[in-house]
Amino acid sequence: MQAANFRATGASGWDTNAHTRIRAATAGLVVAESLEELAAVSEVLFVAVPMPDIGGVFAGISGLVEPSSIVTDVTSVKQPVRDLAATHEFTFVGGHPMAGTEASGFAASDAELLAEAAWVLTIDEGTDLTAWLTLAGLITSLGCRVIPCTSLEHDRAVARVSHLPHILAAALSIAAADDPLGMTLAAGSFRDATRVATTRPELIAAMCGGNSDALGPELSDFVARLQDALFKLDQPDALASWFAAAGAVRANWPPVVTHRTDLPIDDKLAEQLLAAGRAGGQVTAVTTEHVVLRGPSA
Amino acid sequence: MQAANFRATGASGWDTNAHTRIRAATAGLVVAESLEELAAVSEVLFVAVPMPDIGGVFAGISGLVEPSSIVTDVTSVKQPVRDLAATHEFTFVGGHPMAGTEASGFAASDAELLAEAAWVLTIDEGTDLTAWLTLAGLITSLGCRVIPCTSLEHDRAVARVSHLPHILAAALSIAAADDPLGMTLAAGSFRDATRVATTRPELIAAMCGGNSDALGPELSDFVARLQDALFKLDQPDALASWFAAAGAVRANWPPVVTHRTDLPIDDKLAEQLLAAGRAGGQVTAVTTEHVVLRGPSA
Repeated sequence: MQAANFRATGASGWDTNAHTRIRAATAGLVVAESLEELAAVSEVLFVAVPMPDIGGVFAGISGLVEPSSIVTDVTSVKQPVRDLAATHEFTFVGGHPMAGTEASGFAASDAELLAEAAWVLTIDEGTDLTAWLTLAGLITSLGCRVIPCTSLEHDRAVARVSHLPHILAAALSIAAADDPLGMTLAAGSFRDATRVATTRPELIAAMCGGNSDALGPELSDFVARLQDALFKLDQPDALASWFAAAGAVRANWPPVVTHRTDLPIDDKLAEQLLAAGRAGGQVTAVTTEHVVLRGPSA
Repeated sequence: MQAANFRATGASGWDTNAHTRIRAATAGLVVAESLEELAAVSEVLFVAVPMPDIGGVFAGISGLVEPSSIVTDVTSVKQPVRDLAATHEFTFVGGHPMAGTEASGFAASDAELLAEAAWVLTIDEGTDLTAWLTLAGLITSLGCRVIPCTSLEHDRAVARVSHLPHILAAALSIAAADDPLGMTLAAGSFRDATRVATTRPELIAAMCGGNSDALGPELSDFVARLQDALFKLDQPDALASWFAAAGAVRANWPPVVTHRTDLPIDDKLAEQLLAAGRAGGQVTAVTTEHVVLRGPSA
């Protein structure tokens, strides 16, 4: 087993929206004639559609992609996509670049968003590790950091650090509705806490609703944390300690990853990658012989 | 009754911290010899200390300021400060500039923070409206928008749009503690939602704890909103509608204020200013004859 060389000499794309295809072509990108043509010629196929459309695209490309080709996605939930992919014959590795803004559509595309971004590639039972390494090599070559984890681990982590913030942004926006004085007084803390509330509602709803198994318990835990904070409001020392603990967590984010480990590409690799991901490790390069991991400490 | 002309030909300041006084003097600011000296010569005295220190400063200046001089503050809660001021003889108007970052101290000072910032000046029973107009004239001349409201209205509004976001930032930071994978995957939505968690803990605790009467019910309401969101997680249409409603609120923030009304300075002014503040109005200039109000609509 070794990482396949990525043989592609170019990238091309296709979109259901004709207007988007024209804008992409005008911007100098290579646009395929059809999804079928694209699927037939691609060694690696990035399916970049919202969760509700994934099943249709998978069905559309099934049987067209070569068995040796790799299909991946960029959706914000991984277990449902893995389950959909499992009903088809192609080689699938789940992916999720942790990069984006509240804007969407071709006009919102920005290569800078990917600079040093974390990009999850899932490893589950049955994942083709050679395909995983090929993708990890390609994605690290784009300047991203690849995070190995299972689909379940991914869904739980993003429920906490991404989907929950979207719920909070929405709830805080709604709290300020019909309060003109509050809207006048709102400043930086409100601005930042609610920024992602203007994301297209169907996208957030699909993301949060599609991950309700993980997000539900996370939201319940968060409610308990707020009830704890409510209890502390009249205890100045406990309240200050709570804010100090929170500040210490936030001050250490983003984590500094400096420690380098080279993992040999052998039978233990999947297990070692998953252990590294759980400990905050990230893949920064893939060679024919090893995987370069960066972690927070030795 | 008319707005007094602000007669000061200069501004000077004083700080308990000798290091801060030296830095301020080095930066070209005029630094008084002592708080007592400053209090004795000031026509308008801005008490810019955290809530727990307000009582001591009020006691320190009491009897030193001229009866015609105005004392104001910049604290994030207004009812407790008003109650402290009421125990002294000086003319007091509560203030709160809605501008700041998670940083504090002299090195964090930045005049740009005040550009077009909302600056609350409270109007309560017994507030000296001539003093209020003098301050409003001074503050609008700095480029700020003055928001008239009662101390109670202020405390309720900031509980919602400022103190609650600080609680959420802390709770979300704590939720991500001991989760290295989550910290690796956290991106823009986490970054912005938790930014203010690194504010000095004693400052946030004093702000939130000092406003527990208003913040407690607000936090309880927010918990109910999250429980409602939790209930909607498995109802795609209801969830999308909820996010759409939230997005519409946020997309209309900050409110556009274009409608101009000139309020004559007469006996109805206090009542009219408070009604305007409740409706999202803001004072942008004060003349000898009227107050220029800008509001969201006619």
